Amino acid sequence: MSVRETWIVGAASNRFGRMKESAREAATRVSLEAIRSAGLEPKDIGHTFVSNAFGIAEHQAHVGPLINGGLGIPDVPSATIESACSSSSAGLHEAIVHVGGGFEDAVLVVGAEKLSHLDTLAATSYFAIAADYPFETKNGATFPGLYATLASAYEHHYPTKPEMLGSVAIKAHANGARNPHAHFQKEISMDTYLGSPMIASPLRLYDCCPFSDGAAAVVVAAKEFVKKPALEPLVVRASVRTGSVTEMQDRPDLLGLPATRNAAAKAFRQAHLEPSQIDFLEVHDCFTIAELFALEDMGFFPKGTAGAASLDGVTVRDGKLPVNPSGGLKAKGHPVSATGASQVVEVFEQVNGLAGSRAVPKTETALTHNVGATGGSCSVHIFSRR
Amino acid sequence: MSVRETWIVGAASNRFGRMKESAREAATRVSLEAIRSAGLEPKDIGHTFVSNAFGIAEHQAHVGPLINGGLGIPDVPSATIESACSSSSAGLHEAIVHVGGGFEDAVLVVGAEKLSHLDTLAATSYFAIAADYPFETKNGATFPGLYATLASAYEHHYPTKPEMLGSVAIKAHANGARNPHAHFQKEISMDTYLGSPMIASPLRLYDCCPFSDGAAAVVVAAKEFVKKPALEPLVVRASVRTGSVTEMQDRPDLLGLPATRNAAAKAFRQAHLEPSQIDFLEVHDCFTIAELFALEDMGFFPKGTAGAASLDGVTVRDGKLPVNPSGGLKAKGHPVSATGASQVVEVFEQVNGLAGSRAVPKTETALTHNVGATGGSCSVHIFSRR
Repeated sequence: MSVRETWIVGAASNRFGRMKESAREAATRVSLEAIRSAGLEPKDIGHTFVSNAFGIAEHQAHVGPLINGGLGIPDVPSATIESACSSSSAGLHEAIVHVGGGFEDAVLVVGAEKLSHLDTLAATSYFAIAADYPFETKNGATFPGLYATLASAYEHHYPTKPEMLGSVAIKAHANGARNPHAHFQKEISMDTYLGSPMIASPLRLYDCCPFSDGAAAVVVAAKEFVKKPALEPLVVRASVRTGSVTEMQDRPDLLGLPATRNAAAKAFRQAHLEPSQIDFLEVHDCFTIAELFALEDMGFFPKGTAGAASLDGVTVRDGKLPVNPSGGLKAKGHPVSATGASQVVEVFEQVNGLAGSRAVPKTETALTHNVGATGGSCSVHIFSRR
Repeated sequence: MSVRETWIVGAASNRFGRMKESAREAATRVSLEAIRSAGLEPKDIGHTFVSNAFGIAEHQAHVGPLINGGLGIPDVPSATIESACSSSSAGLHEAIVHVGGGFEDAVLVVGAEKLSHLDTLAATSYFAIAADYPFETKNGATFPGLYATLASAYEHHYPTKPEMLGSVAIKAHANGARNPHAHFQKEISMDTYLGSPMIASPLRLYDCCPFSDGAAAVVVAAKEFVKKPALEPLVVRASVRTGSVTEMQDRPDLLGLPATRNAAAKAFRQAHLEPSQIDFLEVHDCFTIAELFALEDMGFFPKGTAGAASLDGVTVRDGKLPVNPSGGLKAKGHPVSATGASQVVEVFEQVNGLAGSRAVPKTETALTHNVGATGGSCSVHIFSRR
């Protein structure tokens, strides 16, 4: 894939939820923490990729130069990268291309979002711009509705008990309760799940990730540049992005996401690994159904079986295949542009023994999976220890 | 710079001004034209970089998958790149990195913007989000005001006659009148310039670029992939991006843009060329003062002398150093995210003898210069014939 071996050498996140500071301020702060965690200084950074899809909610575009200015490196180039909910994974891919291709030695990736100063309707409207305006948004579609359509199609095709989706949410909250970065740090029961209001049938309140503010950053660097890393680095084994037909009515089926299937297949080829060789995952669970899609589309479970596996406890923290030990989008939260970077923060903390009581048993290899909207784009990254 | 020799092999633009179609539709159409001008098919494209900074004005983010879907290549990855008014130059840089580094063989870069359905106040508000919100925008600053501050500082330091700025505008309109892509295709006189209303002293109406809709696309490909190009390719000799302190109060002086100085110095080093070896330029003239800054900051004229040179006719179409034969942002128009790509469209048309009556005398080498906001970011590209 790359000319040079490329590492993740530093990572940081704030607590997702509600930020008093602006996305720009939060992004600058976590960027500095990520750079310092790598044992580097801002002057070592050769390029910054920022994601802040809803910056306009704070009247701010062109935020890269402001963040670099705050870091004391105003002359360093930056670009803002948007790919809906997978924005900072797209930024990560650019960073890996720059470092892997030898264009820079160390690159900063940071994603930040703040929408909590808006009311729910305004926030929902911002989220909705990632759908297809003339075909979806304009006709009233929102993401809960679109994912409910996917969930309905899935339930129609495969026997699915509500408790299966519920087990995804319960597991997410159990992990989030042990993650100091998480928006929701409280466990929930199956009764709480089943008793929660229906948002868009069959999705209940606890099937849906929250609106969160948050910021997360990672530092990508060439092995030959870092030499002696401050913490255990993540070796980038695969970095793949794909697209897909956005409009659901034009897809061959609604039983998964084509962008995920393609991205995972390419990533496993790039890494020379198979699903069975991955120790734990961070996947895109914007809604509980999305986690089942991810696990099946990437080949971890046969189609139509991930729900039963989840209900059986296979994906819990100390299960056979831990999924979303961070709490995922569901419990850690989903500050849109911070989500992709925050998945890598979780892998970095797990590998470095910084995950406390949410530590997973094995951390030799990990995969992160991040979806844009209803699957118009997807990013899959695979990491391993040195 | 790159592992592989990288070419611009295709380019297309619509007529800037007022579009009936959406930015997404226009972007898709010019993308197809650019791909076909290269003698390629959409299936040859390995990645798409889209710029559409104000997509929210059309309720649309995540536009890459929609454009790729329209091109019949929905599985191809895409990302949206924003760097204020230099967005599609930032996208071009990413494309050059991807192709030059061997990650893809051919990459599409497209920028599109549509704001004409908004009133002027709303459009000005969109533009203003590229400034520093808490320090500038929130306190009432807009870009005419900010560039007027720069122009005032310049006039205070260097003797500057209004006719000098006027000569920039008159030359831009003279060229735009010969460019079928241009928003304004009408020449203006010095009397018209001097008689136009003051917008933000010392900048008059004709010192300011217009709000324009528009779309422009280029195709970047590896020499070894294309082999026999359909049209004469542009060899990428340099692709440099820089940042700078955004807040003008924190800069060492206001007599130019540090981001331009740094970008040009690096680009000339990368290309192993000097300013005297460049045959013609497309520079960022969002306001007439910005063209003088560009020419001085890049070393084409000593500080404080570009205005007199412009008034002397040095930069006209058949002058010693033709600048903005397209008409520039001033007359061709400034559909924010399309501007950077459209500068390369002009170079491509000039080199291929497609510039009609605005053809410049020599086209062995060319430089494009694109600024984000008041210089928080800058991109400089240098091209030559094979």
